[in-house]
Formats: sequence, C-alpha cells, structure tokens
Amino acid sequence: MRVIRYDDIPETKVESEGAVGVGIRVLIGEENGAPNFIMRRFSVQPGGRTPFHSHSWEHEVFVLEGRGEAVRGTDSYPIESGSAVLVVPNEEHSFRNTGDEPLVFLCIIPIV
Amino acid sequence: MRVIRYDDIPETKVESEGAVGVGIRVLIGEENGAPNFIMRRFSVQPGGRTPFHSHSWEHEVFVLEGRGEAVRGTDSYPIESGSAVLVVPNEEHSFRNTGDEPLVFLCIIPIV
Repeated sequence: MRVIRYDDIPETKVESEGAVGVGIRVLIGEENGAPNFIMRRFSVQPGGRTPFHSHSWEHEVFVLEGRGEAVRGTDSYPIESGSAVLVVPNEEHSFRNTGDEPLVFLCIIPIV
Repeated sequence: MRVIRYDDIPETKVESEGAVGVGIRVLIGEENGAPNFIMRRFSVQPGGRTPFHSHSWEHEVFVLEGRGEAVRGTDSYPIESGSAVLVVPNEEHSFRNTGDEPLVFLCIIPIV
C-alpha cells in the first residue's frame, strides 16, 4: 500500500505542443508498483487548455475543481467539479478551462 | 466521449460482508465502453468501513471528501481529501471513516 498527498508531489509544467497553462502531478505511476494504470492530477489555468489530440488509449477523467469544457472533434460538453469523462481510444479531445479559477481533474490512463 | 455528473447516478448500498455504511456509484464502467478499467465513487458514513479483504487486482483511490484511514494488514495510514492510495494486488485492505462527515473517494479497478 502506498499513501501520498497530491501536494507532496511537485507540479510540473506540461510542455507538449498545444498545451496552455497546464500542470501535471503523477500521483500513482509505474514506479510506485501500479500494474495496469496511472493516476495523474492536472491543473489548467483560466484560459488554458490541454492539447487537442488523439491516441490509442483511453482517458478516464474526474473533475475536482473549476469549470470548463471537454472538446471532442467539433463538439464540446460542459464539465465542472463532480463530472466524470470517458475519452475512448482514438477520439480527438481537449480539456479547456472556461472559468475564472483553475480547472483541476484526475486523468487515469492505462500503462501502454 | 461520455460526460456524466456523479449525482446523476443513484447511489447503491454495498451489501458485501464486512461493509458498514458504504454506498457506491459506478461512474465509468464496461457498459459505457471503458476498455480497461472502471471508475467508482464510494461514500462511507461516519463509523463505517469497507470490507477488510484482498483480491488479485489493484485499487487506485483518490479521497474527495472527509477523513479516515486506509488499513493494510495490522497497519493503518491516515487519509483525507487529497490523498491518493495504491492498494497492490493480494494486499489485505479496508477503508474506514474516522471522522464526523462522510468519507468519499474514487476507486479505480481494472476490468478483470
């Protein structure tokens, strides 16, 4: 068993192309002995967004704080604290902060 | 993409042996097209606990609200809002509410 507080992990800026105002903390990763999937915590600053991209693995997201939208192709869906989002493999997607406070969410991905 | 608010899903009482005051909502499951893992939201009432048991799959937990302890064998670790917990396969564990408010956490498991 491993117990860790999210704020004991320093936040790292996401430098990927298309990322604006995005920070990441890996809460549970392969190096902690996770066999199948990884738990990350993202923060997106007001006006920021994650890259609009697709990949062969899914995302499972849970919004902890703030308000924004989950973008899928040309559609978008409002999200806020308490929203869960499944992004299926190969679906083009982005998460955007449309509010005045940081948009904070967990994003779990399989180990690929 | 599937977006759902946790409170649009009714909470179901967990009836497993050893569960006291535990409710579950499956936020993202196989029936939603999740390929690899399932996201559940648990609530444990004050004085309540999840079953003390082990199984061949891991848990990845993130505490949303409240205060309690993650029990592993004869050890226990304090948890609160903002704590992440990895329970590795075959580790005997329980989550107990030691506070005065509901203990609420996400628990992600692989599809086995």
